[in-house]
Amino acid sequence: MKKRIGIIGAGVVGTAVGVILREKGYLFAGIYDKQSASTETLGKRIGCKAFDSMQKLSESSDILFITTSDSAIQEIVAILADCRAFHSEQIVIHMSGAHSSEILNRAREMGAKILSVHPLQSFANPDQAIKILPGSVFSIEGDREAYEIAEDIVDSLGGEYFFIDGKAKPLYHAGACVVSNFMVTIIDFGVKLLEKAGIPQNEAVRALMPLITGSVNNIERIGIPDALTGPIARGDLNTVSHHLSSLEEMAPEFIELYKCLGLYTTELAIKKGTIDAKKREDFQKMLSL
Amino acid sequence: MKKRIGIIGAGVVGTAVGVILREKGYLFAGIYDKQSASTETLGKRIGCKAFDSMQKLSESSDILFITTSDSAIQEIVAILADCRAFHSEQIVIHMSGAHSSEILNRAREMGAKILSVHPLQSFANPDQAIKILPGSVFSIEGDREAYEIAEDIVDSLGGEYFFIDGKAKPLYHAGACVVSNFMVTIIDFGVKLLEKAGIPQNEAVRALMPLITGSVNNIERIGIPDALTGPIARGDLNTVSHHLSSLEEMAPEFIELYKCLGLYTTELAIKKGTIDAKKREDFQKMLSL
Repeated sequence: MKKRIGIIGAGVVGTAVGVILREKGYLFAGIYDKQSASTETLGKRIGCKAFDSMQKLSESSDILFITTSDSAIQEIVAILADCRAFHSEQIVIHMSGAHSSEILNRAREMGAKILSVHPLQSFANPDQAIKILPGSVFSIEGDREAYEIAEDIVDSLGGEYFFIDGKAKPLYHAGACVVSNFMVTIIDFGVKLLEKAGIPQNEAVRALMPLITGSVNNIERIGIPDALTGPIARGDLNTVSHHLSSLEEMAPEFIELYKCLGLYTTELAIKKGTIDAKKREDFQKMLSL
Repeated sequence: MKKRIGIIGAGVVGTAVGVILREKGYLFAGIYDKQSASTETLGKRIGCKAFDSMQKLSESSDILFITTSDSAIQEIVAILADCRAFHSEQIVIHMSGAHSSEILNRAREMGAKILSVHPLQSFANPDQAIKILPGSVFSIEGDREAYEIAEDIVDSLGGEYFFIDGKAKPLYHAGACVVSNFMVTIIDFGVKLLEKAGIPQNEAVRALMPLITGSVNNIERIGIPDALTGPIARGDLNTVSHHLSSLEEMAPEFIELYKCLGLYTTELAIKKGTIDAKKREDFQKMLSL
């Protein structure tokens, strides 16, 4: 018998997953959202039952997606477990990057298999999510007996996947946040220095964009550490020292961040093989906090 | 009378500038490179005289580009000045981001006008440079009497420009290096965390790429600070605390960098208006070194 899907949480990810899996021919038990308008909308869009009770939806679902906000997952699991709405033939899945499947443990206690299936992707809205989920890379983590189902689902979503240990999930999530969030911080850092050098913010962002996309392209093309260029990569202590003295004079609030990033960049230059141990030591002296 | 151009240094930038300006109809006195093979190649490519003496080239040039490596500029200027090869009808230009026009002062002492004209761009090779110089944004700095010439040249190269104070040039250069070099550092940071979470490096780079390009697109689309997402932007102390404890356990060498970047990101979240002063204080306590 074909498994019936239930989705709790008709936000961006829940909607996109529902729409794509429906197109791929999955059966649906139904969907639920705490906002009845969202439930109606998604129910109509994928042509399935809009539940007004998540307990009933869980009872009717063989594969239950909990695609609410990260912070709501625990409470929903508790409510469903308190009403004994999980069952032993069931697979319960959340799609959060921050949590491991452990947060679903109360479902497992009732015999369900649990999974976290997370796309390394950020979505602006459901339609964009439907477009870019295919081609995304997913992490899969949880009960091994349910891995085959997880693989089927990711295949159907058009994604690729790898498996990850539950214990490593926060580190993995930190890695994802580093590249997506701290990237913004770095660009802001560069823009602020240009502003302090007299260039208006809008112009600064536009002027720096070719350098940003150039670096990203280089990483795709030749990888890390080869993509690293600039004064640290070529062991140019003189230029780094000029940067530091002009920061000290004109933007002292950024010295710590520059030094901190510079120190790690020195290690990349060592790995690239373009500076030697002596240069590394010189940079370390110059960049220590 | 139309001005004749001379180029000392037939590397990537010298070649690209020579080829483009030739196409735009500029007259050429000739070119010179310390490697006679490079001189021949570029001379043939743009159909101008290949000089075997940079002194003679300078004497024959109304607009002299010194497009050698940054570290060679000073010495070349000294050699040319010692032979009195600069002249008062001349404009001398270097295209380094790290130096202001000041490095050309000895040419100015002989009556020449001096400029630094720097494209915010990184080039892999001359052909790519010819393709992407148009559309780049240039900084112009130096003698005001020569600004008009600088504007003509940037226009002819297909670029946009802004003017910058010589004193601010190192800060401006630091900003350019921050976005192009530290970007690589940040992506390496994220990749290393994924590797420590058990994902092979190649797969990690590929998996993170959508997040990286997503962030860059967001910055272009909605700007900074609005493009900032993630746990710090939404005031999620809990997730950041999980990141820190898993870093402590599995990747302690990255704690300092994470905290340093986190602290600055907190300021961006304040600017975005999605966290309040109390949350900022909580983050500051959590992220202080």
